[in-house]
Amino acid sequence: MTPNQSSDRPLGVAAIGYAFMGKAHSNAWRNVASFFDVPAIEQKVLVGRDADQVADAAARYGWAESATDWRGVLERADIDIVDICAPGWLHAEIAIAALAAGKHVLVEKPLANTMAESDAMVTAAQEARTRGVQSMVGFNYRRVPALALARELIAEGKIGTVRQVRASYLQDWLADDQSPMTWRLRQETAGSGALGDIASHAIDQIQHLLQDTVTDVTGTLHTFIPSRPGPHGTEQVTVDDAAWATLTLAGGAIASVEVSRVALGRKNSLQLEIFGSTGSLAFDLENINELRFFDGTSPIRQQGFSRILVTEPEHPYLEAWWPQGHVIGWEHTFTHQIRDFLTAISTGSAPSPSFEEGLQVQRVLNAIQESAAAKNTLVHVPTT
Amino acid sequence: MTPNQSSDRPLGVAAIGYAFMGKAHSNAWRNVASFFDVPAIEQKVLVGRDADQVADAAARYGWAESATDWRGVLERADIDIVDICAPGWLHAEIAIAALAAGKHVLVEKPLANTMAESDAMVTAAQEARTRGVQSMVGFNYRRVPALALARELIAEGKIGTVRQVRASYLQDWLADDQSPMTWRLRQETAGSGALGDIASHAIDQIQHLLQDTVTDVTGTLHTFIPSRPGPHGTEQVTVDDAAWATLTLAGGAIASVEVSRVALGRKNSLQLEIFGSTGSLAFDLENINELRFFDGTSPIRQQGFSRILVTEPEHPYLEAWWPQGHVIGWEHTFTHQIRDFLTAISTGSAPSPSFEEGLQVQRVLNAIQESAAAKNTLVHVPTT
Amino acid sequence: MTPNQSSDRPLGVAAIGYAFMGKAHSNAWRNVASFFDVPAIEQKVLVGRDADQVADAAARYGWAESATDWRGVLERADIDIVDICAPGWLHAEIAIAALAAGKHVLVEKPLANTMAESDAMVTAAQEARTRGVQSMVGFNYRRVPALALARELIAEGKIGTVRQVRASYLQDWLADDQSPMTWRLRQETAGSGALGDIASHAIDQIQHLLQDTVTDVTGTLHTFIPSRPGPHGTEQVTVDDAAWATLTLAGGAIASVEVSRVALGRKNSLQLEIFGSTGSLAFDLENINELRFFDGTSPIRQQGFSRILVTEPEHPYLEAWWPQGHVIGWEHTFTHQIRDFLTAISTGSAPSPSFEEGLQVQRVLNAIQESAAAKNTLVHVPTT
Amino acid sequence: MTPNQSSDRPLGVAAIGYAFMGKAHSNAWRNVASFFDVPAIEQKVLVGRDADQVADAAARYGWAESATDWRGVLERADIDIVDICAPGWLHAEIAIAALAAGKHVLVEKPLANTMAESDAMVTAAQEARTRGVQSMVGFNYRRVPALALARELIAEGKIGTVRQVRASYLQDWLADDQSPMTWRLRQETAGSGALGDIASHAIDQIQHLLQDTVTDVTGTLHTFIPSRPGPHGTEQVTVDDAAWATLTLAGGAIASVEVSRVALGRKNSLQLEIFGSTGSLAFDLENINELRFFDGTSPIRQQGFSRILVTEPEHPYLEAWWPQGHVIGWEHTFTHQIRDFLTAISTGSAPSPSFEEGLQVQRVLNAIQESAAAKNTLVHVPTT
Repeated sequence: MTPNQSSDRPLGVAAIGYAFMGKAHSNAWRNVASFFDVPAIEQKVLVGRDADQVADAAARYGWAESATDWRGVLERADIDIVDICAPGWLHAEIAIAALAAGKHVLVEKPLANTMAESDAMVTAAQEARTRGVQSMVGFNYRRVPALALARELIAEGKIGTVRQVRASYLQDWLADDQSPMTWRLRQETAGSGALGDIASHAIDQIQHLLQDTVTDVTGTLHTFIPSRPGPHGTEQVTVDDAAWATLTLAGGAIASVEVSRVALGRKNSLQLEIFGSTGSLAFDLENINELRFFDGTSPIRQQGFSRILVTEPEHPYLEAWWPQGHVIGWEHTFTHQIRDFLTAISTGSAPSPSFEEGLQVQRVLNAIQESAAAKNTLVHVPTT
Repeated sequence: MTPNQSSDRPLGVAAIGYAFMGKAHSNAWRNVASFFDVPAIEQKVLVGRDADQVADAAARYGWAESATDWRGVLERADIDIVDICAPGWLHAEIAIAALAAGKHVLVEKPLANTMAESDAMVTAAQEARTRGVQSMVGFNYRRVPALALARELIAEGKIGTVRQVRASYLQDWLADDQSPMTWRLRQETAGSGALGDIASHAIDQIQHLLQDTVTDVTGTLHTFIPSRPGPHGTEQVTVDDAAWATLTLAGGAIASVEVSRVALGRKNSLQLEIFGSTGSLAFDLENINELRFFDGTSPIRQQGFSRILVTEPEHPYLEAWWPQGHVIGWEHTFTHQIRDFLTAISTGSAPSPSFEEGLQVQRVLNAIQESAAAKNTLVHVPTT
Repeated sequence: MTPNQSSDRPLGVAAIGYAFMGKAHSNAWRNVASFFDVPAIEQKVLVGRDADQVADAAARYGWAESATDWRGVLERADIDIVDICAPGWLHAEIAIAALAAGKHVLVEKPLANTMAESDAMVTAAQEARTRGVQSMVGFNYRRVPALALARELIAEGKIGTVRQVRASYLQDWLADDQSPMTWRLRQETAGSGALGDIASHAIDQIQHLLQDTVTDVTGTLHTFIPSRPGPHGTEQVTVDDAAWATLTLAGGAIASVEVSRVALGRKNSLQLEIFGSTGSLAFDLENINELRFFDGTSPIRQQGFSRILVTEPEHPYLEAWWPQGHVIGWEHTFTHQIRDFLTAISTGSAPSPSFEEGLQVQRVLNAIQESAAAKNTLVHVPTT
Repeated sequence: MTPNQSSDRPLGVAAIGYAFMGKAHSNAWRNVASFFDVPAIEQKVLVGRDADQVADAAARYGWAESATDWRGVLERADIDIVDICAPGWLHAEIAIAALAAGKHVLVEKPLANTMAESDAMVTAAQEARTRGVQSMVGFNYRRVPALALARELIAEGKIGTVRQVRASYLQDWLADDQSPMTWRLRQETAGSGALGDIASHAIDQIQHLLQDTVTDVTGTLHTFIPSRPGPHGTEQVTVDDAAWATLTLAGGAIASVEVSRVALGRKNSLQLEIFGSTGSLAFDLENINELRFFDGTSPIRQQGFSRILVTEPEHPYLEAWWPQGHVIGWEHTFTHQIRDFLTAISTGSAPSPSFEEGLQVQRVLNAIQESAAAKNTLVHVPTT
């Protein structure tokens, strides 16, 4: 099916999932039009498995109604967009069906739990694109203004040729070894641990900021806390809680990646340092409104990392918000994501990151797992 | 009139003003119920002078309708709350009329431009309170989680007896001497400059954090850029663009205040440092999610200012938002303000900061102006 | 007497005082020639009241001998330089005698405890200068490389016209109210408290960095802990432990000063923020190797305070030390001071800060005390 | 030969090398007794190849005389200690001869350029130790007070079981690709590049702080700038300018190491982050006086990385220096090193780091090189 583009009515949106990500996406749908000039939308329906809970969430988060059967929702003619916030193992099935039904699809990262699912999703997205049906994967940190600014500065040559990149994503919500077992710590449900959950963000950023592609990896995975209390006794943790990788990019840069869920004291610290031939950049998600920029071309006496408070109207996305110095938060990245998604739909262009870009990240993650399983030996990332 | 408390219908809200503050308050009204358990509300009507513009703003910010006559709105039975975001010279007239009409009133800070207006507003608020009609002044920074946490820690005795406080609020939006003349730079429209606009925040915080009252002040006002380009040539700036004061509090603490609109490089930097007998606290609004705490009772080898990332569920307001480490922004303070305002209304208690508290801040500001006009001589702050 | 300039022998140095400042000055004398090209010197004699202790100190700190009678030392023909590290009440007597004896004099700050003494010292220094006998007062923080760099940048116009300056010097060594009584807390021995001890540094920096002069002041003094345990019971503290002032400079800038010995958590934090029309600077002595510079003329997207690590050969004094990034400490400021003092002597030029500059600081301090005693009323700083 | 321990005369010291390290060591010898209670020493002789230059340096740095023949110096009965600051390829020959001659030996890191040389030095040191002749390798950063404090806190269990360590040492002095070729960039003279020069520091710290041993490594080496201008045209750079490794420690911790000489904007940034089960620590050499400590056992509301300003008398080495808040610099680490070396000699105990410890670091570096040459495959670090 093709999207109903001739209609003048607002775009109807359905979201699937009402937990953490559903709440964050709902917030973006509810607010995007208050700040950005986007095509009119209507929050039609929120979908979840528990009828009562999803009804409550729908009322709370601004949805007109709720539903428990996502297949039924896909059949509705008044739904133009499907936003998939369900767990990773459901991504492929829902996304492929939604695209087939002519719905534009936004799917949370990571694209899917397996390479096979990811491949199938890309095939579906490519076919749908020929019908004008758009798709996007939700690497929301691309829409952090400071990181969008970083990308602009790199693209403008402000740091010269990028040589060395340091990326880390450190959290500590699993530092307590008495924190209980969950589905996120089992390989069969979660796919992987810190690797898929947060290294995926780091790797997407590296490729996005440099506009480059990882070609080779060496990687290590480790589970510092191998068992945890479950409802019926101690259970084995079967995913990593920390990961390390060294990545080679096609353009010659080398990037290190380190992620952890047991880095006590780091709460949500995605850090990026990018060292170029004439300048450098540094970022920490815990200070989301700041970008550090070292301009190696300024007079030596004055050189230093400058703390850019990324809240000026000249900065990406900021003109829509508040006066300079009035900082924004984490949730705003989702609002920016919806804005860019809607803008792409309205102009008929393919939004980015595409499913293909999501697949490329999955390939890098997969190669890291292969390397880790083979004594860290260098593994080439396949391009198809 | 008394509020229509027996009704089961949602509380009807009218907001007056759709510029910067109107946008920020609207955002809070639109989102508060998505995150907090508050009485149901409806964004009924947005009021402004320009019919077309206010209609656009109403549509954009989530209001059901718009209007240009605030007096007419006060007569509507379906309006329970009036949120006054109009300029300061209109506060008194609207607030007094709204309270008389039995509407709960939230008014932006500062309470009013003159002491006479402020006094009248307090009288009206006190009378209205006897009818169960509530009122509040919008010192939103009381609802910064890090500052709310600071107040808790002080109240719990974590820093002992407060001795010395350093408060500053530094901005730079007027640093360029070619920035044009506006109504904000004329005394007759703005009342004062940096003093009323931003020192008011600093002074409210000092009194709020310490739960204490300023009794004596010495102050200095200065206009670094005394004239600016206007549409018909150079005009005189008749308000301060920087101010300094030293405040004595009833409990014995001494606080310094320095504010500026020409502090180049500081964008929206409300800084507070509170030094007590056994601990200290420090805060900067540009890092709104952080509080620094020095615990003088810990072992000397380990002492140091700790950077508390105020994003834990245990921190004020945070449980409603996102997981730890997922930071919030400036606008969230208004959402918290609405939440507390609605909670007070629903429980029939008087919200804080009350008009009396707003008046007390005005008295301090007034005393600073008196001192500045009298060669900085110490001026006592009247209590009535 | 005139200095023995025809001699080829090394300059003979005597230092008076072997406590904290004597130790710091000795370190500088012992090391200056290892890093800088200066006239040859010999650490001849260290003078103190306790024969045994000063002998020990002399041996430890590199002095050839020790003595207890400073008058006798002034008579020695092999002494060319007298470095006065004795307490403030002895400065005038020793300095005037040393200058009369034809010795170049370096005296620790503050110049003296009283205005009369300061005046007499200036008179003596002016007369001695006609004989080629040099004198200098030890505001060592002028020789912090980061602050010397700040002065250069200001002089080069890098921040335009200076408008607003914020200076503070916060310590906490008296925060504990059980810390015992000492001579530093009695007016008759110490002259003043935090004002003379640390506000003097702040005021000297303001005038030095801006190359400007304070003309008017308003000030406040306070003693948070008015009594302390002494050997024979509780004693009254008769000096301030915190002080506040607002200063007007001849060129139109306004500076605030706040100093404290009870600012718990701040150990030795001399902070300076200088806001100009096109740029700003910020410094904290606790990060002695860093200067923050905001360049308001760079593209808005890239603006921010840059952290200059002041360790490049292009930075003041640094070429003599270590490779870039190898930081120096607090004591190095004294080595730089000796270097500049010796260089001035060898070139026959008057070193800076001169006694006149020291006197000017005393006048500002005195005016602050007058203002504080007169309900903070504005006080003009006399020029003679 | 055995050391001449019965003598009452001061220990005679000879230093070999007068460049960067010779200057730093000389400074320490010249000053150690002014601050610490150590056995009396005399700076007897400075040795170098160029007679004029070494004579100048000796005069400047406080040595009684200079010499060009280190073998002759070893024969002198008045020399008790030999401090080897010569380049790495000379370490083994001089150290072994000095130990044979009964001289206590301090040798700069890295221990030697080759494993064979390192092994021979250890054999010599072990034999000499039986004669009471001591030896030490100069990993001076063990004597950074903040890092010494970190080690104490770890040993006391303040952070629980260490899990994850992040170490990096980033410099930028080779970031400019027009910076000329030097002996440091040729494998035959330098042994390796960033790996041996700065990764050695990082690896020593990891093992020292954790009191643990690296057992397995995976590593990557890279030369971002493969050729540089030489006096006769472009030359090949044959050492790495950046290196990455992941290390497994016997106790179960995993450490990442990343070092670079092209990390533009990082001047001398040795960073360490140590994440334990109940606390964490962080350090950056560019802020040498600071240690960050996260205490996971304090109440959650108050948790955060505290910035400990390591300048209290209670902190390692600090009591000898200045009052709290008066910061020290990079060079002080060498003074501390000499103090500990002398203390060990005077008590007849073996100083640390021993040559054995230096050898262990070499083994880890060697294993990283092996891994890098074998597609990053995991390499076991031999224990003998």
